[in-house]
Parts: sequence; structure tokens; C-alpha cells
Amino acid sequence: MSQEIPEKQWACVIEKTGGPVEYKEIPVPKPGPDEVLINIKYSGVCHTDLHAVNGDWPLATKLPLVGGHEGAGVVVALGELVDDIKVGDYGGVKWINGTCLACDFCQQADEPLCPKALLSGYTVDGTFQQYCIAKAAHMTRLSKDIPLDAVAPVLCAGITVYKGLKESGAKPGQTVAIVGAGGGLGSLAQQYAKAMGLRTIAIDTGDDKEKMCSELGSYAFVDFAKSKNVVKDVQAATEDGLGPHAVILVAVNEKPFQQAAEYVRPRGTVVCIGLPAGAYLRAPVFESVIKMVTIKGSYVGNRRDGAEAIEFFRRGLIKAPYKIVGLSELQKVYDLMHEGKIAGRYVLDTSK
Amino acid sequence: MSQEIPEKQWACVIEKTGGPVEYKEIPVPKPGPDEVLINIKYSGVCHTDLHAVNGDWPLATKLPLVGGHEGAGVVVALGELVDDIKVGDYGGVKWINGTCLACDFCQQADEPLCPKALLSGYTVDGTFQQYCIAKAAHMTRLSKDIPLDAVAPVLCAGITVYKGLKESGAKPGQTVAIVGAGGGLGSLAQQYAKAMGLRTIAIDTGDDKEKMCSELGSYAFVDFAKSKNVVKDVQAATEDGLGPHAVILVAVNEKPFQQAAEYVRPRGTVVCIGLPAGAYLRAPVFESVIKMVTIKGSYVGNRRDGAEAIEFFRRGLIKAPYKIVGLSELQKVYDLMHEGKIAGRYVLDTSK
Amino acid sequence: MSQEIPEKQWACVIEKTGGPVEYKEIPVPKPGPDEVLINIKYSGVCHTDLHAVNGDWPLATKLPLVGGHEGAGVVVALGELVDDIKVGDYGGVKWINGTCLACDFCQQADEPLCPKALLSGYTVDGTFQQYCIAKAAHMTRLSKDIPLDAVAPVLCAGITVYKGLKESGAKPGQTVAIVGAGGGLGSLAQQYAKAMGLRTIAIDTGDDKEKMCSELGSYAFVDFAKSKNVVKDVQAATEDGLGPHAVILVAVNEKPFQQAAEYVRPRGTVVCIGLPAGAYLRAPVFESVIKMVTIKGSYVGNRRDGAEAIEFFRRGLIKAPYKIVGLSELQKVYDLMHEGKIAGRYVLDTSK
Amino acid sequence: MSQEIPEKQWACVIEKTGGPVEYKEIPVPKPGPDEVLINIKYSGVCHTDLHAVNGDWPLATKLPLVGGHEGAGVVVALGELVDDIKVGDYGGVKWINGTCLACDFCQQADEPLCPKALLSGYTVDGTFQQYCIAKAAHMTRLSKDIPLDAVAPVLCAGITVYKGLKESGAKPGQTVAIVGAGGGLGSLAQQYAKAMGLRTIAIDTGDDKEKMCSELGSYAFVDFAKSKNVVKDVQAATEDGLGPHAVILVAVNEKPFQQAAEYVRPRGTVVCIGLPAGAYLRAPVFESVIKMVTIKGSYVGNRRDGAEAIEFFRRGLIKAPYKIVGLSELQKVYDLMHEGKIAGRYVLDTSK
Repeated sequence: MSQEIPEKQWACVIEKTGGPVEYKEIPVPKPGPDEVLINIKYSGVCHTDLHAVNGDWPLATKLPLVGGHEGAGVVVALGELVDDIKVGDYGGVKWINGTCLACDFCQQADEPLCPKALLSGYTVDGTFQQYCIAKAAHMTRLSKDIPLDAVAPVLCAGITVYKGLKESGAKPGQTVAIVGAGGGLGSLAQQYAKAMGLRTIAIDTGDDKEKMCSELGSYAFVDFAKSKNVVKDVQAATEDGLGPHAVILVAVNEKPFQQAAEYVRPRGTVVCIGLPAGAYLRAPVFESVIKMVTIKGSYVGNRRDGAEAIEFFRRGLIKAPYKIVGLSELQKVYDLMHEGKIAGRYVLDTSK
Repeated sequence: MSQEIPEKQWACVIEKTGGPVEYKEIPVPKPGPDEVLINIKYSGVCHTDLHAVNGDWPLATKLPLVGGHEGAGVVVALGELVDDIKVGDYGGVKWINGTCLACDFCQQADEPLCPKALLSGYTVDGTFQQYCIAKAAHMTRLSKDIPLDAVAPVLCAGITVYKGLKESGAKPGQTVAIVGAGGGLGSLAQQYAKAMGLRTIAIDTGDDKEKMCSELGSYAFVDFAKSKNVVKDVQAATEDGLGPHAVILVAVNEKPFQQAAEYVRPRGTVVCIGLPAGAYLRAPVFESVIKMVTIKGSYVGNRRDGAEAIEFFRRGLIKAPYKIVGLSELQKVYDLMHEGKIAGRYVLDTSK
Repeated sequence: MSQEIPEKQWACVIEKTGGPVEYKEIPVPKPGPDEVLINIKYSGVCHTDLHAVNGDWPLATKLPLVGGHEGAGVVVALGELVDDIKVGDYGGVKWINGTCLACDFCQQADEPLCPKALLSGYTVDGTFQQYCIAKAAHMTRLSKDIPLDAVAPVLCAGITVYKGLKESGAKPGQTVAIVGAGGGLGSLAQQYAKAMGLRTIAIDTGDDKEKMCSELGSYAFVDFAKSKNVVKDVQAATEDGLGPHAVILVAVNEKPFQQAAEYVRPRGTVVCIGLPAGAYLRAPVFESVIKMVTIKGSYVGNRRDGAEAIEFFRRGLIKAPYKIVGLSELQKVYDLMHEGKIAGRYVLDTSK
Repeated sequence: MSQEIPEKQWACVIEKTGGPVEYKEIPVPKPGPDEVLINIKYSGVCHTDLHAVNGDWPLATKLPLVGGHEGAGVVVALGELVDDIKVGDYGGVKWINGTCLACDFCQQADEPLCPKALLSGYTVDGTFQQYCIAKAAHMTRLSKDIPLDAVAPVLCAGITVYKGLKESGAKPGQTVAIVGAGGGLGSLAQQYAKAMGLRTIAIDTGDDKEKMCSELGSYAFVDFAKSKNVVKDVQAATEDGLGPHAVILVAVNEKPFQQAAEYVRPRGTVVCIGLPAGAYLRAPVFESVIKMVTIKGSYVGNRRDGAEAIEFFRRGLIKAPYKIVGLSELQKVYDLMHEGKIAGRYVLDTSK
């Protein structure tokens, strides 16, 4: 192992729920037998990180906590059991840091449902540090032609929308409505859908977003603020007026969840990805039954989804706009998020 | 065509929404080129028939109306295009009397979703008469070893719960909770589940129902009235405490719809079959997403489901208790239904 | 019905197996209650038509026979039961002219497997005439923005390869090898694969074909004549060297059928579409079992496949090069086929 | 860890391909961080063990070799990473002893296809010893109500046929033909099929086997030695004469592999499980394509298949007849196998 690993490193730490974030030196951890140590070069900042700081999800974080779960870097040390990764390989750290690999869910490739799942930047320290631990079996393999800054947001947002599209069951040539198409997740969802041979109807508001969605390949746009009847307008945007085969909900308020079950095509699927706090899925029983509508929640991707989503990115089919700032500026990014002033993703450079 | 077809027949007719049912003579209809005329011998009475009389569903009936959609009888006449059915064959008439066979839904074997579907006893005259029309392609083929009285309730209730079990995606060896297990649909659901290699947890209330469900093969019973925590008790009834792989909701009130999403296994499916008037599906977004729960409506079976459900019955695996009364007594049956005094299914003998 | 339908029309007829083709006047047929009459404008010529003339398939044709099963035209008359098609609509006639719509296979959307299927230009008269009968439920609906000449070859070749790709189970992002990529079916297969988000490896021989396949979007080409080891070269063309997820065989000789099972990825699928006379699928049991390889035959598409394949074409994603000649020149086209002198598809103009 | 683990143990070892088997004392191995040490109580003997001795498969074994891959026992030691298994738990060792849990195949729950799979009694020492190593993630969890002798043959033969039935895609109520129904695998296949709600046609020869298959629940028996036309007889044994939905091939000669593709139902699946040395799958292209037949190889089950197969056994639905002899008598069992004198399975008691 040629690279020298320091004893200390820079990290962003919160000591208690609510913050604040402290940028300080902490020890570099050592990998266990089935783990790798990754020198994180870049880490995206996701809304989930803010939930972890605020403690507003029904799930406790570890404390003190190093947040972050969209990290990309270079492997610098290996546990003794690791034989398919080499020092110097590129690797990604995702929300799911590790799982038991033996439970009922892990056995059927649903690792994100493992009751013992380790969550990066939530139940174990994450990627807002220079050296991060990951379970080797869960590290996302990145080939050397992948830029480590640009891939960071794909490691969470990209994989998550890709998973949602897979879960929708929509087949190449079919139509998917993306609710919240103009946001970060929505923009990725449109690109993945296109790469998968799907057609998209973008649902959002504003002329800028309409223009952006058109450029991303959506063939129709429904402005929910201008529309007099969103349900009718979405259905009218499909060839036969029967509605889209699937709906992907990345919006973070409750109302669109209820409209979606109305405009989706009979036998269609509404996939919920966004996590509006305290929101409820709600759909009329009668119509849902006679239309045979499916409503399902989609969480993050498993390892296979991750590898596939990264491969679409590697082939140049996915662009996620981002802005790079230093790791030391994380608190400022959180402040902007609080104020709702963020467009696109922030990516932290851990060297600053 | 050897059998003589009369000009007139006895039927139960309502002239206007709300009833009453009149037992009287009306003309025998003639089949079109793609239709058959069936001499109905027996017809089950379903809650939907009462909805048709009462007009309390958001879908208008034809008027005057001959109700009924669980009819079994003998083919007596064929349209000119019909070449795979012979006079003398046994046939069943289901809720779906006919569909266009050419639309997007019919093309993918989802005939019940055909926008032009003809509904027996609702948008076309049904089986509460001695001679009923059915589209030949939709008539359920019944072999001669099938008793026409016993099969009647299977033609609607049986096929519907079988379809719901198929839609649940539960695989042989997996566990399905049946909510409302002690009722007519629930009792059929338990029998079909067993025939399909599934294990069932019965959810209902009362010692009689517990005993019945045990006899039908359910390995566990949760009494929702006695249980202090239905969610925990249902989960505890599964081997690993993680909950059943699927839930079939045949109950007709709203609360169980909401509990089901809580106790179903991660990656599990909640299937709604019952149609409580004005009810809503409702599930918390956060839990549904991180557990990747699927909630889906299941309507009636398609023709293939029908044939399969009948075949399980023919093999002796399904028993639906019923009581035979004359067609002329339909109003009395409705009165008992109104009063909630019905246990098991009533089957009408059209000869009386 | 405004358009005047003549009593007589021009058609290409063979009186006996072996031919010759006679171009002559015959009566215009009349549609039955569930049929339409289509004024065929253009009809593609397929190798199957030649098999019908030669009688070298283990299935007898009607005689005398009007061949052809890639016809596109305008509906001019409707049977009394037809209510979702109007005179003046555009319609396509495919290999499957009609089926019973009621058997086990029709019930599950596998109409091509219906034992009573009517085969255009084989067991019923086909599209090498100006006025052709089709079962209304089976007529391919064509919207008015579809050019009737260009769509003709898609109606058979296009749908068939699209079906094969669906049957392969390959998912967007996965890799499919197309064996015989440089021919007519192969060129369509590459285009459909691309539209479906699949990546393709083209297998054929010659620099011209290599260039064409590259233009059609294949990212790799294996020249089976130049390759010293086709199995290794195909596997090497995949990212991880484990082979393509699926193989589509449109070639018409036996050898590639046997190589495919060797280079396909473990758990992969080999789909046979081409019909080399007298050929056998052959694969070693041991390797097939421990690699869990699937080998399957894919016949023509069902109605849904047809509609989907046409929709990809309508969106401009599929180009099938063709040359137009008069209907009267059919025998010449057959002669060229016999001599193996055909590149691309011939389309007959029925007005000449 | 309360139980004392000895330094030495009794084992059956071959020093070179071809044997002989030596029953002797060897050291007890020590588990690595992700492994467990199991005190094997009973181990089944499978034909594969004989292939390992004879070296007649195209895959080399380790040498010297302790064979065996159907072992059941008690966990006596744990590696440091193992936290979901306790000393004293019951565990099973299968053919797949361990895999990387990280490759493309492991990621999608196809561990048996892992290129780094460790094979018990083949590439790592197996269960013909008193203390055997297993990767913890791959050890089959056995609850305490499972008899360790009776479960041994289920751990290989049972899981393998269960997997094959799953791979067949046959649905509850459908018909599966079992070729070689009277043998050990065949008898298990019939029982699993029944537990899964499938109907079976047994294919084998002899009155004893016919009686046995009838007792195991097969509703029809085709004696391939007496039948004048196996294809016709198998098809005639299905309700509609169109053939079984799937065929499971556990026979070890080549001919049945070729008949199966002929009598299977259109759209049906032929699953190959047996591994006749040097045999080939062979099916006519034309018929396979127009019937859309699927032929697939099914190897051993993954961990989930294993757990499911064991659960059916635990519920009392599966009986595999066996005879217990001492571990020291393994060579005699092989000799009987060589002579084809084995009916039912032999299970070795490692204490003798």
C-alpha cells in the first residue's frame, strides 16, 4: 500500500442534533477485515444530510456525526478479506454503507431493506471527511474514466431516481410523468428515463423550468400553477388520452401524490420517491380498484441499481449540474438550503 | 338447435333506481353474430347487485334493468360467428359480459379495464332471468362435471379473490394476511390461497370465525376486536416477525386499509378488493417509501383468471356455502342483505 | 361509405405450389361482420412469401393463393360489428390476419399461438392484391402521419425483431448481440434495440456491414469470417468480458445458433427468430445448466407488440430502406430473391 | 464457546482423482473472520460426489479432497465478523460453500453463478468430516425442530429441484411434467410441485414407479418404455391436449431432452437439471420458434431458494427416504452407486 495514510484528517462534525457543523481535525479510521478506507475527494450535499442535522426524521443518528453519503474518492487501504478491490481503485460511498448480506432482504438483492443496514452520514460516519470507511461489498466500483466530482451527486440522487424508474415497471416506448421535473431529482429522472427508452411528461411550474425540461427531452410540460385541471391536462398529453403508464413523484408536498392516482393510466403505477415530512399517500378506493392502480414507495437503489446508474453516467448520458465549494464551507451550504436558495447540487472538495 | 326457445321468460326487473324488483314475464332476447344465448339455471346474488339497485356507485346502470352477474346455465343458441361453442355446452356469465377485444387493455389481457366493457346486470341485462345474452368470447366455459348451482358464486366472488391473490405477487410458501377472512370473499380467499401453496393469517373477529378460518387452513388468526395491537399481532404471527408478504383486503370499512400498510412486510403488497363506499387508501409516505410497500387495487379477473379459478373449483379444492331460493324471491334476499342478515351466498333457481 | 369499391381488382395469384405468380384480375372480396376491407396501397415482400410459393415449410398454404403479409392501406368497408374503425382510416395487415380471440393463448395475449390463427398470404389471401380482408380486431391501426410505403416492411420484419428483443428480457443499459446484424432484420433489430435503451454488438461479416452497423449505433462489431474465435471476441466486446445479456439470432444458418449459447452471459438469453430450414438448436447440457442459459424461440409479435413497434417507427426512430416496384413485378422480385441479389426490402405499389 | 473443539477429527479423504476414499484422522480447521465451524452430524451422498472422485466433469477438484455437500450439524465456532449466528445453532452446508457477495451475479442473488464460488467437497473441503468450514453468509439456517439426518438430502437434491420448479415459471394450477419422476430427484420434484400448487405428470417406467408417483400426488403417469408415442401420450394427459406448461428434466440420458421440446405446451418451458455427461440439448428451430418454446438450464438454488426449500420440508410437506450408515462406510456407498444398486439416498453418520 504505497500511499501514506495520515493519522489525522479534516472533517465536518456535529456534536449534537441541531448542529452546528464544526470543521475540525479528527483521527483517520482503520478498516475492519471486510472494509476499505477511501480517500474521499468530493462529496455531494443532499437534503437528507440536513434532515440528519435537524433530527426531523423518525430515525436517530449516531452522535457525534460526520454526515455525507455521496462521496467519491480513491481506495487507500483494504481489510484482509477484501480481494476484488485494489489500493488505487476509485470508489463511491452511498447512503447504504453496508448491510449484513445474509438476511432475507439481502438474500434477494434488497439490501436497502436490511434491518442492519449501516447508513452513511447517519448511523455511521459519512463522506464529509477526507478518509471514510465503507464495507467493501457495498463500495460502488468506479472506473478510472469517471470524474470524481461530477459523479458525486449521481451516487445518491441519480441512483435513487433510476431505481424509481425501474420500480415503475414502465417499458421502453411508454410514457412516464415526472412530478417535480424541474428540480435536481426531476432533472436526473428525465435524463435516466430518456436513456431507458421512456418518454416523459414534465410536471412543474414556470417558463424557465419548461424550457429546461424540453431541453432534457420531455415531449410535454404541464404547468401545475397555470393549469385549470392538472388531471385532464396530463391525460391529454398522452397519445390516447388515457394517461401516462407511470408517475414518478419527486416533489416534496402532499397534493401531487393524490392527483397522480387520478391521472395515471389504468394498470399504471405511481412511484413515490420524495419524502415530504408527515405526508400521506391518499387515493380513493373505488377508482383505485376499478382502474387497478398501483402505488408504491421506492427507496434508494441496491448495489446493482447503483452500478447500472453509474454506467449510464459513464457513457455520457447523464449530466447533473453542480457547484464546487470547500468541505469547510458545509455550514454555508446548509444555510442556503434552509433558505431554499439552492439550484442544482453543491459538491464539496475535501481538500479545502 | 334441438331445444325449443320460448318467446317469453320469467325475469326480475327494476324499472327505476331504488327498485322495487318486479318478478315478471319479458321477451327472450336474440343473440347477435358474436353472442350466445344461455338458459340460466342458477344465479348467485352479490352485494354489487344491491349497489346496482340502489344506484350508490359513481356509474349509472341501464334502466329498466335485469340484474345479476353470477349465472350458470346451458347454451341454447349461437350467433353466426361463434364456432367454438356448441348448443348444449355449459356456460357462465360474469360481471364482464363483453369487451371490444381490440383496445390497448384488451390487447394485453386486461379486458376488465376495457372502456367499452359491458357489465352484466349493470350496463346490459344480467342473469336474473331465464335466458341471458353473453358475448361468446367472454362466456366462461364450464365442463359438464361442474354443478351449475355450486359454481354460481365462484363466477364472481371466487374469481375476484383469486385475481387478488395473483395480483399480490405472493409466491408458494409465502404468507398472506386475509382481512375480513370470515366473510364470503374471505372464506374463498383462504381456500384459493391454500390451493396456490400460500399460507394464510386470518384477520376477523369472533370465536366462530376463528374456528371456521382454522378449518379452512389458516395457521393463525388475529381477532381485531380483541387485539390490543393488530399491527404487532399480525407481524408476530409470521415466522420471522417481519410481517406477511401480502395482505388481501376484502373488508368493507376503511380502517383495515390503513393498518395493512403498517404490518405488511417490507417489499410487501397490499391488495384492495373490497369497495367500501367513499373510502380512501391512506398510508404514510415516509414508511411506505423506506419499506418499499406496494398498494394496489384489484378489480375482477380477466377471462384467463376466470378459467383458472373455475378449474380449481372443478378439482374440488374450493367450497362456497350457499342457499338456494327461487328467482321470484330476489326481493326478499335483498331485504335480508339490507338488514345484514346474510351468512354465505344466496343462489337463485330460475325455474321458480 | 363514400368511396366506390370496384367489383374487380388486380392481384398476384399462384394456382399451385411452386408458382408461377400470375398478375391478373380477380373479384374484390366482401368483409364479414367482424372484418374490414382494406384498399392496400403498398405491400412489402418477405422471404416467408417465397416459402409460401415454394411450399418448403411443414405447413400447407391455401390454393389458389394471393400471398403477402406486409400490407398498408386505407379502410374502405366495415362489417356490421366493427365500431372502432372508420372508413378512411389507415390500416396494416400482418402475418396474423385473425385469431379466435377466445382460446387459452388469445386470452393471454399470445394470439400468434392461436391454433385457429389465419395467416395472411398463407392460409387466407394476403396483401398482394388491391383489396384485402382483415379481421377488424387484428388490423394494425396506423395514424394518418404514417407513410404507407415506408411502414410496410415494419409490419412484419420490424414487429418481429421488436418482439424478439422484448422476449430476450434485456433491460435498458444491457448489451445484446445481434447475429446477422447486416441484413434487413438485423438492421431493424439494431435500431429497435437503440430505441429501447439497449446497447448492441453487431455480428456479421464485411467492411460495408461493419460501417453500416456502426452508423446504426452498434458499439462493437465482430466479423465472424475474420475472427479466429467468435466466442472469445464477442465476450471481449462486453465491459466485463462475461458476454452479452442476450443474443438475437436473425441469421439463417445453423452454426451461429450453437455459438450463441457459448458466448452469452451466465443467466443470459438466446432468442431465435430466423427460421433456417431444417436447422436445430443445439447446446451442451452441462454448460447450459451451470451457466443457467435460456434458449427461446420468438415468433411474430402480438397486436400490442405491433402497435408498439409501429409507434417507435412513427416517432422517427426506425428507418427501413426499401425500393418500390409495381405489384405486377412480383415474380421478378422473387427471382432476385432466389438469386440472393436483394439488399434491403422491396415494396410493391398495388396501383401498377 | 462452551463446547470443546478437538484438534483432530475423522474424515473421508481422497488423495488423488480416482480415489480410493481413506477414512482417517485429520486436523480440525479454524474458521476465518467471516466463517463458521460446523460439527457435521449427518451428510448425504450425492452423485456429484462420485463425479468429484472420478474427475469426469470439466472442472478440477482440489486435492487432497474431503468430499460431501449435503451436511447438517451444529455450529461450534464463529469468526469475528459473524454476529447473526450463535454457537449451538443448527446449520447446513450446501454445494455453494461461499461466494464473493459482491460481483454482478452475487448482487442479483445469483450467487451460484459467482465466478469465485467455493464448492463444498469440490474446490474446498466438504461435509465428509466431523468439522467443516462454511462461509457464514452461506450457511443454511436450520431451526431446532428440523431433524439433522432427514434434512441432509434436502440440502442438495431438494433445493435443486425446488429451484428448477421456480425457474420453470409454472404457476399454481398449471401442469408440470417430471421426467425421471421415479428417481430421487424426481420424487422430491413431485412433492415440491404439489406443495407449490402445481399438478404433475410423472414420466418414468415400471409399475412400482407408477404406484409411487401416484402416491406422491401425480395425477398421470406415462411409461416411456411402454408408450408407443411419448409425445402424444404426455399431451393427451393434459386437460386440453396442448401439453404441460413446463417440463422438469432430472433424467440422465439425452433422449428425453429432445422429446420434451416437442410435447411442451406452446409458450412452455423445458428446464434441464440433470447433468448427463456429454449430452446436448437439441430442438428443431422451426417448431421451437413458432411454438415460442423456452429451454433453460437450472443449476443449484441460491440462498433464498435454500431457505424456502427447507421451510417446505420443516412444515412436513417433503419426505426424502434415506438409509443411515457410518461415515467410515463411504467407499461402500460409492461402490453401490457404481453398480447402480442405490434406491433412495444414503446419509452418513459422522460419529461412526
